[in-house]
Parts: sequence; structure tokens; C-alpha cells
Amino acid sequence: MSTCLVPRLAVVGVGLIGGSLALALKAAGAVGEVVGIGRGRANLDKALELGVIDRATQDLAEGVRDADLVFLATPVLSLTEVAATAAAHMKLGAILTDGGSVKGSVAAAIEPLLPVGIHFVPGHPIAGTEKSGAEAAFATLYHGRRCILTPTAHTDIGALDLVRRVWEIAGSSVVLMDVEKHDRILAAISHLPHMVAYSLVNAVGSYDRYEENILEYSAGGFRDFTRIASSDPTMWRDIALTNRDALLEMMERCEAFFAELKEDVRNGEADKLYEFFQRSKELRDAIVK
Amino acid sequence: MSTCLVPRLAVVGVGLIGGSLALALKAAGAVGEVVGIGRGRANLDKALELGVIDRATQDLAEGVRDADLVFLATPVLSLTEVAATAAAHMKLGAILTDGGSVKGSVAAAIEPLLPVGIHFVPGHPIAGTEKSGAEAAFATLYHGRRCILTPTAHTDIGALDLVRRVWEIAGSSVVLMDVEKHDRILAAISHLPHMVAYSLVNAVGSYDRYEENILEYSAGGFRDFTRIASSDPTMWRDIALTNRDALLEMMERCEAFFAELKEDVRNGEADKLYEFFQRSKELRDAIVK
Ligand SMILES: NC(=O)c1ccc[n+]([C@@H]2O[C@H](COP(=O)([O-])OP(=O)(O)OC[C@H]3O[C@@H](n4cnc5c(N)ncnc54)[C@H](OP(=O)(O)O)[C@@H]3O)[C@@H](O)[C@H]2O)c1
Ligand SMILES: NC(=O)c1ccc[n+]([C@@H]2O[C@H](COP(=O)([O-])OP(=O)(O)OC[C@H]3O[C@@H](n4cnc5c(N)ncnc54)[C@H](OP(=O)(O)O)[C@@H]3O)[C@@H](O)[C@H]2O)c1
Repeated sequence: MSTCLVPRLAVVGVGLIGGSLALALKAAGAVGEVVGIGRGRANLDKALELGVIDRATQDLAEGVRDADLVFLATPVLSLTEVAATAAAHMKLGAILTDGGSVKGSVAAAIEPLLPVGIHFVPGHPIAGTEKSGAEAAFATLYHGRRCILTPTAHTDIGALDLVRRVWEIAGSSVVLMDVEKHDRILAAISHLPHMVAYSLVNAVGSYDRYEENILEYSAGGFRDFTRIASSDPTMWRDIALTNRDALLEMMERCEAFFAELKEDVRNGEADKLYEFFQRSKELRDAIVK
Repeated sequence: MSTCLVPRLAVVGVGLIGGSLALALKAAGAVGEVVGIGRGRANLDKALELGVIDRATQDLAEGVRDADLVFLATPVLSLTEVAATAAAHMKLGAILTDGGSVKGSVAAAIEPLLPVGIHFVPGHPIAGTEKSGAEAAFATLYHGRRCILTPTAHTDIGALDLVRRVWEIAGSSVVLMDVEKHDRILAAISHLPHMVAYSLVNAVGSYDRYEENILEYSAGGFRDFTRIASSDPTMWRDIALTNRDALLEMMERCEAFFAELKEDVRNGEADKLYEFFQRSKELRDAIVK
């Protein structure tokens, strides 16, 4: 890049998601200065030390003041309050965007708060790990991933275009999607699997028929399968609270399949069991072809 | 190894489990000749080509005749019939062992069939991948894994000792365990997670509210989480049929945790959700320390 797309970027919440976007844009030469904003000093110092950000502040109003683009990457429930304060102190024409995992409630809460001249683009990179904090951030997190942007009737076209370019520079392919559709699809492919993994680990880990910890016997399969149950509890509490209806729909769907399978196990239905497993294997294999 | 522990090994079912034991013992110089026995010619030819076995036959009786050790590595439901034929043709003093994922029903079915002078040691290596067939086998599959042997009141001590040494040479640490305990622990840490993964993939993969295949949006988390849903349907049908009671107990346990979580989501119970996720994260993180 010879031109600098974002002269000053402010990242609110310099964790895995915020930190990785900063690193990706720095690696591409697409940002001038990166200001990191957070509540705790320890994480900000770590981010400075690792070169994720160039300047740090715990004062949100001051941190966003001169930014051309403000990226909010704090847990979903905190986004509204953070957006309200940020938007009140941003310069005219600046763009606000976010990476929150739920979009409907976020867009609905933030849009009415925006002063005239501040543009908001709701977004969600489909990338992540179970790690948290500035230390978890890395420049290639978004490479080859999708980033979903969910513009609403109020979204400014120029702002949308800039945010799209930002994610493309970070290595992602950008998909535009209706907020409601985003929340339902994510409930299915991401939020439900996390609920399932958390339940499974609690069910197995608290099984106390034997004295030893039976998880000690688990092999690679169990460890891979339950990796997502190590994800940050605050992040997932917020997702469960803010995408409730779509998540409940998917949880009920999954319960019905599980109950069907349980009945087949109970009744020793050899053919039905085979078909159930075979269908699942075909669906799974189709996505990793 | 300067002495050869097993002059002639017969492997019935030269797939992931049988083939990997053959390769591990060959790599350690612990076997003389390895005879592979299977139903289909294609898999046996592949096994010969890859050097997994030295000789192949589709005739079980002939294949086991001169073997010192016969390892059964076919799906659980086939083990009884295969064991009956094998035991009837093995030489006096030879040892029969298996790698089936369920032990109670297998040991109970096989022991009454054994001619005098044929020793049976039920076993189960806690290692695996979601791949099948001779091509999936590799010499280090058992490195650093546990292998559970479940001797019964009828198990010969000398035979148990030899089978233990075989698995140790293959790289595993051997644990002796009661059959019933084995089946309950495996129901928890392996069989339940597979049922959960199969149900989840079916629930999500058949969700058709939108025209496109929503699995296309899934990122790394979903793929890792559902990898075990690619496992062989025959193998898992057999496990579900033969470890029914222990599996049902765990499925009901998991259902109860999932139902609790669903109620917390429905009622917007922020603190309970946080605690549920936090407890799970602690349990999960404790096993990968
Ligand atoms: N992890 C994923 O896989 C993933 C994927 C896509 C989207 N997301 C979304 O991205 C956002 C961030 O997730 P993450 O994984 O990057 O989390 P993270 O690594 O924990 O980072 C969040 C950062 O926000 C700060 N923070 C937390 N609460 C705050 C608050 N109330 N006000 C201001 N700052 C706060 C934290 O630092 P201080 O505690 O020092 O303030 C922390 O550094 C969430 O909305 C999440 O839903 C996550
Ligand atoms: N995969 C795992 O993670 C894992 C872990 C521990 C234990 N186990 C247990 O190990 C055993 C083998 O599993 P695997 O993963 O190695 O399966 P696999 O890769 O599919 O191998 C099984 C082999 O057995 C042969 N076979 C299948 N049905 C047969 C029958 N009725 N009679 C004779 N041969 C038959 C098959 O070849 P042909 O079709 O050509 O006969 C195949 O090569 C199972 O009992 C399983 O429960 C598996």
C-alpha cells in the first residue's frame, strides 16, 4: 500500500479480535497510528509491548477523538455503552464499526444514539480462537476468512465501502447480509455448538461415579471436540443473552435430533443408527472437501 | 529389540487400529511376520503395498493357524463371530486379543467360546482418528496414549503380560480396568461426545431456512468441533448397540445439563450463564494443562 487507508485507527478492546485487526492493518501498511483503548492497564501495556498498538489510553473519549475509524471489539453487552461514549467524542465524518458476534440487538441499540455525521457499520469477522486478550492477537487471524457486514437502512454507503476495504486488506472476503439472517446463521453454526460443548464438558466433567477424574482418560478427539468450551465466559454470556430467540430455536432443534438418537439407542435400532451417523458424516465431509 | 516378542502376528481387520498396531510393532522390531486378514481384497492389497502387513488372506481360519498372537480389529458387533472362527483354528497356547471400543459385551460373548489352551485378553487402545482403512494406519498412533486392558476372572496372567508388553512396545501406557468401569468411562469421554457431534451436525446441516448451505459459513471452530462426526457409521452403530445402558445414562445426563442451560438462556439468567460457562472452561482447561 502506498496510500494509507486509515490515518488513525482507534481500537476499543485490544483483545483477540481488536488486536488482530490492528496487526493485520499494520502489516499491510494500511494504518498510520493505532490507539488502543481498554479498561485495564495490564492488557494495554502488553499490547504496546507486542507492537499491537502505538499508543494506549484508558480514557475512551480521549482515545477516539482524532480517529478516522473506531473499531469496537469488547463483549457484546458492553458495545452500546461504549458506542454511545465513543460516538459522542468522535470527529465529524469519522466511522464507527464493531466486531461483535451478535448484530441485531447491537445495531438496533447503537443506531439511535449516533450524532449526525458519525457513521456506523455493524460487522462480524467469522474468525477466532478460544484465547483472549492482546497476547492472543495475530496478524493472520482473518486470512481466508469471511467477514459479514450487516448494513441497515441507515448505513452510509461510503462508510460501508471503507469498512469493506479494511476487512479485505486484513485478508477476509466480505459478505453483506441482513442482520436477522446473520443472527440466525451464527446461532446455528457458532452459538449452538458452543452451548453444546459447554453442556457436554459440564456433564462429563462432573460425573463422579469413580474416584479419579475420568477426563484424564480422554484422547485427542475429546480435546479437539471440547476446545471451544474453553472460550471466554463473559463473551458467551453476552451472546446467549443478546441472541436469545435464534439460539433457543437452534437449541430446540438440536434437542430434538438428540432425543431421536437416544430413542434409537434405547430401542437398538441398528439401521436407523447407521443412517443417522451416515447422514451426519456426509454433511460434515461436504464442508471440508 | 534383539529378541522378537511375537514371531507371527495375525491382524484381523487391517484398518486404522489393526494396521497401526502392525506398523508400530514392525517399527520396533517386535514381530516376525504379520499376516493380514480381511473380507475385501482391495484393502488387503493396499495394506501389502504400504508394508503394513507381509502376507494377506481372506481366509480367517488359514490366516490365524500359525499365529502366536491374533489381534481382532473389526467393528464391535463382528468380534464375536470372528473370535469364534479364529479361536477354533489357532494353535494351542496362542493368544487372542482385540481392540474393540466396548468391552463388557465383547468379553462376555467371547469367553464361553474359547477352546481350552487359547487365551483371550480384552483390550482397547485409547487412540484413534476419524479415518478408516489400511491407508489411515500409522506407526505412531499409540505413542503417548493409554491402552486399557480389561482382564476378567478367566484371563491367563501370562497372556495378559504379553499383551501388555505389546502395547507398551507400541508406545502406550497400559491401564488395567474392570470391564464395567471401562464401558462407563468410555461412554462418558468418547461415546457421548460422538452422539453429541452427530446430533449437532444433523441439526445444523439440515436447517433449511435459507437457500444456501449455511455450513459454508462455518469457521475453524465448527470444523474442529464436528470432526468426530466424520467417523465410520458402522463402527459407531456397533458401539451404540453394544454399550447401550452406559451410553443412555450419559445421554440423559447431557440432556439435563443442556436443558438447564436452555432455561437459563430463555430466562436471560446472566449470572447463571456466566457460571455455567466458567465451570466448563475450568474443567476443560484442567485437562490440557
Ligand atoms: N473470540 C472470537 O472467536 C470472536 C470472533 C468474532 C467476534 N468476536 C467478538 O469480538 C468481541 C471481542 O472478543 P475477543 O475474543 O477479542 O475478546 P477479548 O480477547 O477478551 O478482548 C476483549 C477486550 O475488551 C476489553 N473489554 C472487556 N470488557 C470491556 C468493557 N466493558 N468496556 C471496555 N473494554 C472492555 C478487554 O480489556 P479490559 O478488560 O482491559 O478492558 C479485552 O481486552 C466480542 O464482542 C466478541 O463477541 C469474538
Ligand atoms: N477408530 C477409532 O478411533 C478406534 C479407537 C479404538 C478402538 N477402535 C475399535 O477398533 C476396531 C476397528 O476400528 P478401525 O477404526 O480400525 O476401523 P477400520 O479402519 O474401518 O478397520 C476395520 C477393518 O475391519 C475389516 N472388517 C470390517 N468388518 C468386518 C467383518 N465383519 N469381518 C471381518 N473384517 C471386517 C475391514 O476391512 P474389510 O471391509 O475389507 O473386511 C476394515 O479394514 C473397532 O472395533 C473399533 O470399535 C476404533
